[in-house]
Amino acid sequence: MAQMVKAAVLTAPGNIEIREFPFPALQKGSAVARVLSAGICGTDKHTYLGETKQYAGTKSAADVAFPLIQGHENVLEIVEIDQEGSETLEFYNQKLKPGDRVTMCPDVTCGTCFYCTHFPVFPWCDSLQLGYGNSRSCAQAPHLFGGFAEYIYIVPGTRLYKVPDALPDDIASLTELMCVAYSLDKAKEFNSFSGEGFSFNDTVVVQGTGPLGLAHIIKARMMGAGKIIATDISDYKLEIARAFGADFTLNVNTTTPEERLELVREQTHGLGADIVVECVGRPHVVAEGISMLRKAGMYLETGNFVDCGPMQLSINEICTKNIRVIGMSNNAYTGYRPSMEMMVRTLDKLPWEKFISHRFPLEKAEEAIKTSMSPESMKVIIKP
Amino acid sequence: MAQMVKAAVLTAPGNIEIREFPFPALQKGSAVARVLSAGICGTDKHTYLGETKQYAGTKSAADVAFPLIQGHENVLEIVEIDQEGSETLEFYNQKLKPGDRVTMCPDVTCGTCFYCTHFPVFPWCDSLQLGYGNSRSCAQAPHLFGGFAEYIYIVPGTRLYKVPDALPDDIASLTELMCVAYSLDKAKEFNSFSGEGFSFNDTVVVQGTGPLGLAHIIKARMMGAGKIIATDISDYKLEIARAFGADFTLNVNTTTPEERLELVREQTHGLGADIVVECVGRPHVVAEGISMLRKAGMYLETGNFVDCGPMQLSINEICTKNIRVIGMSNNAYTGYRPSMEMMVRTLDKLPWEKFISHRFPLEKAEEAIKTSMSPESMKVIIKP
Amino acid sequence: MAQMVKAAVLTAPGNIEIREFPFPALQKGSAVARVLSAGICGTDKHTYLGETKQYAGTKSAADVAFPLIQGHENVLEIVEIDQEGSETLEFYNQKLKPGDRVTMCPDVTCGTCFYCTHFPVFPWCDSLQLGYGNSRSCAQAPHLFGGFAEYIYIVPGTRLYKVPDALPDDIASLTELMCVAYSLDKAKEFNSFSGEGFSFNDTVVVQGTGPLGLAHIIKARMMGAGKIIATDISDYKLEIARAFGADFTLNVNTTTPEERLELVREQTHGLGADIVVECVGRPHVVAEGISMLRKAGMYLETGNFVDCGPMQLSINEICTKNIRVIGMSNNAYTGYRPSMEMMVRTLDKLPWEKFISHRFPLEKAEEAIKTSMSPESMKVIIKP
Amino acid sequence: MAQMVKAAVLTAPGNIEIREFPFPALQKGSAVARVLSAGICGTDKHTYLGETKQYAGTKSAADVAFPLIQGHENVLEIVEIDQEGSETLEFYNQKLKPGDRVTMCPDVTCGTCFYCTHFPVFPWCDSLQLGYGNSRSCAQAPHLFGGFAEYIYIVPGTRLYKVPDALPDDIASLTELMCVAYSLDKAKEFNSFSGEGFSFNDTVVVQGTGPLGLAHIIKARMMGAGKIIATDISDYKLEIARAFGADFTLNVNTTTPEERLELVREQTHGLGADIVVECVGRPHVVAEGISMLRKAGMYLETGNFVDCGPMQLSINEICTKNIRVIGMSNNAYTGYRPSMEMMVRTLDKLPWEKFISHRFPLEKAEEAIKTSMSPESMKVIIKP
Repeated sequence: MAQMVKAAVLTAPGNIEIREFPFPALQKGSAVARVLSAGICGTDKHTYLGETKQYAGTKSAADVAFPLIQGHENVLEIVEIDQEGSETLEFYNQKLKPGDRVTMCPDVTCGTCFYCTHFPVFPWCDSLQLGYGNSRSCAQAPHLFGGFAEYIYIVPGTRLYKVPDALPDDIASLTELMCVAYSLDKAKEFNSFSGEGFSFNDTVVVQGTGPLGLAHIIKARMMGAGKIIATDISDYKLEIARAFGADFTLNVNTTTPEERLELVREQTHGLGADIVVECVGRPHVVAEGISMLRKAGMYLETGNFVDCGPMQLSINEICTKNIRVIGMSNNAYTGYRPSMEMMVRTLDKLPWEKFISHRFPLEKAEEAIKTSMSPESMKVIIKP
Repeated sequence: MAQMVKAAVLTAPGNIEIREFPFPALQKGSAVARVLSAGICGTDKHTYLGETKQYAGTKSAADVAFPLIQGHENVLEIVEIDQEGSETLEFYNQKLKPGDRVTMCPDVTCGTCFYCTHFPVFPWCDSLQLGYGNSRSCAQAPHLFGGFAEYIYIVPGTRLYKVPDALPDDIASLTELMCVAYSLDKAKEFNSFSGEGFSFNDTVVVQGTGPLGLAHIIKARMMGAGKIIATDISDYKLEIARAFGADFTLNVNTTTPEERLELVREQTHGLGADIVVECVGRPHVVAEGISMLRKAGMYLETGNFVDCGPMQLSINEICTKNIRVIGMSNNAYTGYRPSMEMMVRTLDKLPWEKFISHRFPLEKAEEAIKTSMSPESMKVIIKP
Repeated sequence: MAQMVKAAVLTAPGNIEIREFPFPALQKGSAVARVLSAGICGTDKHTYLGETKQYAGTKSAADVAFPLIQGHENVLEIVEIDQEGSETLEFYNQKLKPGDRVTMCPDVTCGTCFYCTHFPVFPWCDSLQLGYGNSRSCAQAPHLFGGFAEYIYIVPGTRLYKVPDALPDDIASLTELMCVAYSLDKAKEFNSFSGEGFSFNDTVVVQGTGPLGLAHIIKARMMGAGKIIATDISDYKLEIARAFGADFTLNVNTTTPEERLELVREQTHGLGADIVVECVGRPHVVAEGISMLRKAGMYLETGNFVDCGPMQLSINEICTKNIRVIGMSNNAYTGYRPSMEMMVRTLDKLPWEKFISHRFPLEKAEEAIKTSMSPESMKVIIKP
Repeated sequence: MAQMVKAAVLTAPGNIEIREFPFPALQKGSAVARVLSAGICGTDKHTYLGETKQYAGTKSAADVAFPLIQGHENVLEIVEIDQEGSETLEFYNQKLKPGDRVTMCPDVTCGTCFYCTHFPVFPWCDSLQLGYGNSRSCAQAPHLFGGFAEYIYIVPGTRLYKVPDALPDDIASLTELMCVAYSLDKAKEFNSFSGEGFSFNDTVVVQGTGPLGLAHIIKARMMGAGKIIATDISDYKLEIARAFGADFTLNVNTTTPEERLELVREQTHGLGADIVVECVGRPHVVAEGISMLRKAGMYLETGNFVDCGPMQLSINEICTKNIRVIGMSNNAYTGYRPSMEMMVRTLDKLPWEKFISHRFPLEKAEEAIKTSMSPESMKVIIKP
């Protein structure tokens, strides 16, 4: 087949070019899929800016390799698939055929290392095979390992998830992001009834109301949060946060840390927040977040996936306030179907359309990624 | 009664004087007890050194008030007690009478604040009434609020615990300390089976093998730890650590951080420790401790009860390694009886006598506290 | 004061009489309150029917004592209160004064037994002092220990909770019931992320859609349930269940067990329900409920508070399906304020008025209790 | 290869014959291993007795198929293995070669069903591929699917675990059994600190002190249990229980239920046991076990893996005592290495040799299985 496939290639930090690759030949257990919708993630922005150190302190720590086709929040339509791929690629054992719509977990894991066998629902793998849109250069054939392209190549071991018919493409592209917002699922496990984990009616502070923060606001509301307080530097984003259930919003550019702390205490009978979720992705916000917690509160550290340097912290405050700081990266394989079913259930109850602020064609990928960094944008998606 | 009571009074940091106070008149619901044995705690050392800021970042944050009778790890003999005290002071509702031996929880709480009603087995009270040996100056009548004295005055609301007959006084004085070592009890709650909390056969690193570290080593072994690795600056202490069950010990003065990390990895099939417990009480050890953890490991922060300044930390490492940092102060009221029963059970199985390195009479309280700060001492007790 | 107080007295099973008692004289630490609204609970119905054995197998096991003023789901207006009562009776330390509206925890506990000190947020007390409306005969002065009366006498140690201004009396009377529906709070603690406890998007079956079942449906929806399936013998009740969020309802009178099991499997990708909650209060439904569970599912046993005899169960099924059966009685003291805040938050989102099907004056208490046993009623309240 | 392999074949309940099978030809990803030691499990006894209904109420429910080579508690020496088998069969990715000793998980799972993907450390698979020694008839080539034979055939997907050099063959054959005793690992997860799960110093009752009960006694002691109380019908077994750490033993043939309940209460300050573990494997003991629990106690149902009929239970007692009944079958893949490391660590501290009461050559397999059913035996192993 002489067909060529267009893709937006990040050749180096700050430079995206549209290039063409040959339509890939199908290998055993694999699939080729058309990209219907691909969201831009915070990690994509870091990489574009040259902040490419991920997984610091772990064996997986590595700089991203260029040239790269980014894009891992993908909704796909199966175009070609062989018998084995049809029977093994869908996580719930549904048979796949051309025309089926799927979303995907971007991490392909080894399946046999200590982490794969001991924490098998998380991609904490010590030898990640492939991180679509993130870790494998498109210099390597069959090249198409990212979502900012007309087609994507699906290797054996990839986890695909059939999209329910009722879920529109663009909303479906939020699936991976909603899975990443599993912090509160984690939080409720820690002795939650006695108030040490996430409990019914808890006050939740979300630091940063970009897409990740917004996903946490939605999840918090759905899981029984009481008051939800959100902070950001963008009034535009804070307004959307309110539309999805935040009760109070604070612009950190126009309020002082003292005013923010006061509001949190005022709304919590003087105690402090039960839970604070870090969704800014920058280290400097952590100390303020911890100061907002009541004793025995929980700090969910989910945003600092990319290394942006160290921070100053009072370990004495963590000790004497009996704080829990819970680091979380990635997501769980078991979160995709529940997230999609939840979005279908709330299609007419939540203003999902507001979650997606901009859509761009593939050719405008660079404009898309720049837009996604603006305070006046929420989720930006590319529609190849 | 004209009897006078001798006490060791810390008049200001670095200065202890023996003073006399009138034998206290018994009030309703109270007791007077003779001090049989009183341990010197790490907090006592900090206070003696003038490091008096506790509970940073909380409403309870306050400088210690001088003059102070220190001593809160007390074993007592009831001397005087009224009917109401007899019926209410023992935590398990055992009637108390003169001659009974008891140990005590040093914190007397309000019982009605949010923390007392929502976390009722912990002294996380927002308006602590009294911290024996720590927070109430002896300038205030009836003066005798600490264990470094011939007698102590027990106010209503104090929690006393009858000492089993088989438990010698000095071993009984370790009860409060053993209760403080409840970190692993906490740790096992967090999704422990799948390896995110403290699990059977886990490798535990204990940073600092003073009395608190030693208590954790004992508890870790009793609760099913696998390999136990201990670090300290004192060969003397590390030797005792081995006597109580540590498998590997590392003197941080004679090893490099890289050597320590290598040993930990070597002993954990290359992965890193499952659990690291901070028992040094100084912020600078935290980053090394976290680096020793495998992914999804847990850092138990239990030593930095006194504020010794901030530290530098990589929040990205916490995020991407999926680390849990769990702050813990104080202990649980429900830990005293189990701790005493456990010590009785193991009297002939563990070298408990080695836990106590020095005994001093009341008159030598200052020498005692100085000795407790030496690398060549373990638990130092005062026998008034 | 010669004022007399009218009360509905259950003189023996099946017989209620309106009697008069002297307006009580206020004792230290106490209060007298006007009853604004008092709900009829399932336990009240059992007692009326002569099924009076509660807490089987425990020290608290005792037959209810007659004559009895029933009613423990009470909303009250403080009429008289002394200084000490004002400062101690409200659970969150709010000062109380005449005119304040409060709801109450019906159980007054000893505060010192093993259960009170080890499980201090639950009324699992081994020597319950008083169960308003349930355990203390009105033969004993000051007589007024139940809510089916014009006034109620509040003893020291009672836990009162201020009602938010925005919450109407009758909705506020649902507070205690909403607290009893804490099963799912409990359920989520058990290793929930990996699917062994209550997880986001879980399918929940609620057996019995009387008030207790309805409360669970509401809570399940608020806490992130996926599909909710409800069973009952009354179409009337099932319709209300749907109005509050049940997705599927099954009338057990018009369906076979096989049909019900089939629906559950059909709606759960063939697996079975994640959680089944027993809210019927009769032993015979348990085996069917357990059969509806997937492997590693959880059965929340919350309805059989009154002893209605033994049942047949397959312990092999519990073993090999890795089932958890979790017994739960009473509620938590810490649930009242969250429940009221949640009802305020959802006043305009849920059809709370449909929860209350009938209102009766005190004089018609017997008609009220008979109505509450009809399949055509939901929560029935008495407005003295 | 014309070599023949001897095996003990259960042709039908109650009849074992020694038969010969051809030495198997090695397929891709597989191995052939010599059986060094094979323990007789409770399930083997049930099957021999014709009690062959396992996994009742689940899709896996099936009668065992005859003729069958039993034996799944196996210690093996690798004899033949291909490259792929060498690289994939060991759970911790250690390369295997002829001469290596391994133990094995008997369950081979599909890896793709809901249970395999959602509870991936447990063999709760909905379409078990093979249960060595239990579910696949030896009528099917290559026949050798059980441990009561000279050689065993290892299929791809089997999980093998290298045996540490220091661990003798026969002790290593206890590995699978020690893994099955994971109940307490589970138990400690349930809100354990506040006393609702397995906590430090808890009183544990073990019903039945055959091998499974004994394994639980060992594990309970290692994990911090306080008093351990054991019941059985055999003084012989109870004596061994004491040698491994049981503090009190009760012969149910010579004591009444009331006497047993009294002892439990006496030893628990009048409260009842914190944890009861069912290791008898017969339904009739469950009600007594539950009666021994304190309120909020936990019943670990681990013995009734084979269906022996229904039982009578008071659901009201479960409800009002706030009991948790936790069903558990199988074991976790992640338990094998920890169990072996623990046995190595305690080789000189526990009388492991007493655990194994009898050894038989393969030819006496039937005598072995009969011996294992005698009250005067503990673990019986076959040494082919």
